[in-house]
Amino acid sequence: MIELVGFDADDTLWHSEPYFQDAHAQFERILGSYLDLADARVHERLLDTERRNIKLFGYGAKGMTLSLIETAIELTDATISSRDIQKLVELGKAILTHPVELLPSVREAVAEVAQRHRVVLITKGDLFHQEAKVRDSGLADLFHRIEVVSEKDTATYSRLFEEFGQVPEHFAMVGNSLRSDIEPVLALGGFGVHVPYAVTWALEAEHAADLGSPRLRVVTSMAEVPAAIAQLAG
Amino acid sequence: MIELVGFDADDTLWHSEPYFQDAHAQFERILGSYLDLADARVHERLLDTERRNIKLFGYGAKGMTLSLIETAIELTDATISSRDIQKLVELGKAILTHPVELLPSVREAVAEVAQRHRVVLITKGDLFHQEAKVRDSGLADLFHRIEVVSEKDTATYSRLFEEFGQVPEHFAMVGNSLRSDIEPVLALGGFGVHVPYAVTWALEAEHAADLGSPRLRVVTSMAEVPAAIAQLAG
Repeated sequence: MIELVGFDADDTLWHSEPYFQDAHAQFERILGSYLDLADARVHERLLDTERRNIKLFGYGAKGMTLSLIETAIELTDATISSRDIQKLVELGKAILTHPVELLPSVREAVAEVAQRHRVVLITKGDLFHQEAKVRDSGLADLFHRIEVVSEKDTATYSRLFEEFGQVPEHFAMVGNSLRSDIEPVLALGGFGVHVPYAVTWALEAEHAADLGSPRLRVVTSMAEVPAAIAQLAG
Repeated sequence: MIELVGFDADDTLWHSEPYFQDAHAQFERILGSYLDLADARVHERLLDTERRNIKLFGYGAKGMTLSLIETAIELTDATISSRDIQKLVELGKAILTHPVELLPSVREAVAEVAQRHRVVLITKGDLFHQEAKVRDSGLADLFHRIEVVSEKDTATYSRLFEEFGQVPEHFAMVGNSLRSDIEPVLALGGFGVHVPYAVTWALEAEHAADLGSPRLRVVTSMAEVPAAIAQLAG
C-alpha cells in the first residue's frame, strides 16, 4: 500500500544538470586563455574544490560560482583578470535565471499519480532558487507540499515522514538520483522509482542503493511512472 | 489565547549581523588600496548591488560574497587583483564558519515559553547555513519545528500556519526585525514581541509594522520575553 509519493525536481521534473555542465564548459574556455587545458586537469581540480566547499556552501549555483572563482584563482596562480572573474559570476547568474524546461510527460504523470495518492515535491539545494523554479514550473498546484532540504539522507527523510505523519512503508520516491532519491528511501523501508537522467553530476554519482530490491522499479521516462507506482502499490 | 510561539533566529537567538558588518568593514579596507574611500561611497554601492542581486540570490552569506566580488570589480574598474578577490571569498567563508554565540538568557527564555506553548523556530536565509547554526546552537531540542524560509512575508506565514494547523489569532512571533518578524504577523491578526538588536541591516530596516498595535509588546532582552507572551496571552 502506497499513500504518499514524493517527486524529486532537478533532472526528474525539469532539466538542471546540463546548465551546470554548460557553466563548467564555459569555465574551461575562460581558463584556456591562461592554461594549457590538456595539462591542467581543470575538471578534477574544480571537483576537488566543490567537494571541499560543499560542507560549507551546501548545494546550488551560488556555492558552485564561488568554487569556480576559487578554482580559477588557484589554477591561474592568481593571474586571472577580474573581468574574467566577473564572467564567472555571470555564469552563476545564468544558472539562476534560466527558464524552467519540463521533461516530457511530467505534468500528466504527476497529475495521474495525484489522482490515487498524496504527492509531495522533495528537492535538495538552494532554497531560494528551488522555490523560484517550482513557481516558474507551473506545477506547484499539483503538490500537497513542497519541501526544500539541504541533504537527502535517511535523517532528512525520517524527519519528513514525521512531519507528514507517514510511515516509510507507505511512501514511494520518484527521482533520477540513486544516491539522493532511492538509496535512503529503500534503506528506511520505502519504495523507489528510478528515472535515470542523461547526465549525473560526479558528486551525485556515488551511491549504495540496493538495485536488486523488490521495492524498486526502474523506468525510462516520467510517462512510465504512474504504472510503476501502481505495480509497487499492488 | 496563544498556542504557538515562533522565534526568529539571527540577532534574536544568536549574533549574526555583526559578522556581516565586520565583512563589510574588511571589504572597505581591501578596496582602500584601489580607491579614495572618502569619495567612493563603497557602502552605498554595495547596498545597490545587494538590492539588485537579492532577487536572484536571496538572503545569506554566499549571495553577499558574490555581491562583494561584483561591487569590488565595478568600483575598481576591474583593477582589483584576483588575490584580493580570493580575500573576499574568505570573508564569506568566515561568516559561514563563525561559532554560534547565543544572546543572553536565550535558552532559559525559550525553555520557559516552551512550558506553556508549542514553540517553533522560523528563520530566513540560506537553508544550509541556517541548519548548521541551529545544530551548533544546541537549541534544536527546544523547538517543535525548525522552518527555514526564503522570505518572511504574509504569504510565507500563511503557508506555515496551514502546515502547523494553526490560526494566526493563536500565534505570537518573537524577533528583532519589525519587517520580517512583526509586520506580517500583526497584519495577519497574530501577536508580536519585538526584541530590538543593536544593529540592523539597511535592507531589513524598512518596515510598515503597526507600532501602536495592542497585539505588540516591545522588550529589551530575551529574558523579558516569557512575561511579554504571558501578558499578550492573558
